[in-house]
Amino acid sequence: MSKNFDVVGIGNAIVDVLVQADDAFIDAHGLTKGTMALVDEAQAERLYAVCGPGLETSGGSAANTLAGVAQLGGRAGFIGRVRNDQLGGIFAHDIRSVGARFETPPTTSGPSTARCLILVTPDAQRTMCTYLGASVTLDPADLDLELVAQAKVLYLEGYLWDSEPAKRAFIAAAEVVRAHGGEVALSLSDGFCVERHRASFLELVDGHVDLLFANELEICALYATDSFEQAVALVRGCCKVAALTRSEQGSLVLAGEVSHTIAPYQLGPLLDTTGAGDLYAAGFLHGYTQGQSLEACGRLGSLCAGLVVTQLGPRPQASLQDLVRLHLG
Amino acid sequence: MSKNFDVVGIGNAIVDVLVQADDAFIDAHGLTKGTMALVDEAQAERLYAVCGPGLETSGGSAANTLAGVAQLGGRAGFIGRVRNDQLGGIFAHDIRSVGARFETPPTTSGPSTARCLILVTPDAQRTMCTYLGASVTLDPADLDLELVAQAKVLYLEGYLWDSEPAKRAFIAAAEVVRAHGGEVALSLSDGFCVERHRASFLELVDGHVDLLFANELEICALYATDSFEQAVALVRGCCKVAALTRSEQGSLVLAGEVSHTIAPYQLGPLLDTTGAGDLYAAGFLHGYTQGQSLEACGRLGSLCAGLVVTQLGPRPQASLQDLVRLHLG
Repeated sequence: MSKNFDVVGIGNAIVDVLVQADDAFIDAHGLTKGTMALVDEAQAERLYAVCGPGLETSGGSAANTLAGVAQLGGRAGFIGRVRNDQLGGIFAHDIRSVGARFETPPTTSGPSTARCLILVTPDAQRTMCTYLGASVTLDPADLDLELVAQAKVLYLEGYLWDSEPAKRAFIAAAEVVRAHGGEVALSLSDGFCVERHRASFLELVDGHVDLLFANELEICALYATDSFEQAVALVRGCCKVAALTRSEQGSLVLAGEVSHTIAPYQLGPLLDTTGAGDLYAAGFLHGYTQGQSLEACGRLGSLCAGLVVTQLGPRPQASLQDLVRLHLG
Repeated sequence: MSKNFDVVGIGNAIVDVLVQADDAFIDAHGLTKGTMALVDEAQAERLYAVCGPGLETSGGSAANTLAGVAQLGGRAGFIGRVRNDQLGGIFAHDIRSVGARFETPPTTSGPSTARCLILVTPDAQRTMCTYLGASVTLDPADLDLELVAQAKVLYLEGYLWDSEPAKRAFIAAAEVVRAHGGEVALSLSDGFCVERHRASFLELVDGHVDLLFANELEICALYATDSFEQAVALVRGCCKVAALTRSEQGSLVLAGEVSHTIAPYQLGPLLDTTGAGDLYAAGFLHGYTQGQSLEACGRLGSLCAGLVVTQLGPRPQASLQDLVRLHLG
């Protein structure tokens, strides 16, 4: 079936606030390095009040991925909720300006646009505190099902599971995309998120997801194991493709009985790992929807992730298409 | 007279939107590279709608300088107007988070917080389009004269001259600081700004300003000459100290008949010149209010400017105190 969109994503529409912090700050505020914690508005404000100066930029896991697909030249669409406030305007501008379609109407009352305080430590790790704000008001009524039906791949972030209406929106969209001959991709998002929703994710991964993205921590959390090898054995065969990222060890792409080991790209000093997983998925999905081999998809994902970790923030500031020409052209 | 503040600044309270652009974009929109143009809200929105994704961060010329003074360990205060909107909250957070005092109450109605679209071209030049928004509603009634009276140096940006109430606020503050034994510093801000207000600046510089900051273009614009040497001859003796910055040629500090030539610092690849003049002033004023020699003040200014041009955005992301220890310790 001919499709007008390569990848359509559904996720939380978030503006990131990037702040440099040291380990003592992370510890003093009871945060767990490398993870995402949900906070309410009052907690978000308390933490913001005591942290250093920030850089604001559009974020959101699936939104970063879809922006990346668009930057690579793919036909990308994003569905997510902002409010009609200044940060909502920034979010909408940024994703549209790279060529992605984003038409979800903003809310006009209620909570403000979602904000994620990202504390970047000198070891380049990011620790996130997310106030979901308007993004949790995404519900099935917000879905542009016409857009979803036109997607080769529908991409969803596990973070949506933290909101019951958003989760229902996802499941409705997944049914539509499959009914129209498309495929469903899921990112597990975060180890704690997986632990919060393990049963639901397990059921989903076993038969309802075509492409699964997860890092080592997340896939181990899904199967409640400390052994990556055991997790690999368990996920193999559950979905058509599982792409498992392992930071400086690169990634492992599983399809049936076949495994591809993909080397990481080190393009410069490691500055901020924010967006690494999101950009891996962007590169992978762009290759996938262009009909590339799984190994080529993995390399493209690895390359995009390798770029974004050399800069501050989750969306590449340099041209991804130039990057591809340089390294894979 | 003992003072509780080293430097207090008055300026436009602005949030910057940093966008990478090429020369064709600058030309297509009738902009002049390297300058600041004032735009109304509709123009600002039109331009924003067609440009690439942005990074938002606190800016404003004098605000950048005062943030820099605070980051260097100086006692800094800033006076400027934001609205009580999301960008206003970001501005207030960022300047307070580095230790500067900022207590000007935000407006609760009227135009939104000022925004400056900064187009950064591959040659690291920045071209600015400023929507002044709430910042122009700064008037003498907003002045914290108690704060001003406690300043060793009152620092003002020439951009204030674009607003009649802000200009009046500045003149009122200058009278207060001088009456309390403090000194007045002025930055000429921008060549076009100087041309818009030449007569007023000339009168001011000749006797009412103790420390003058200008780049080569601005000081030439002030004396309507193409010759830097001629401008130097004309400004010499007008104010106690004139610090004239010359990009890759470093700076020239004049005091009476004495001249100090200060070499530039090249700390890394040139990425974005936004904030270079502001951080030069920060370093200079910090040295000055700590009683350092004019040559040492120039070196400190040069060092801070040398750092900020290696990063995207107008306020240093790395520690200025560490930088000083490394290079001047």
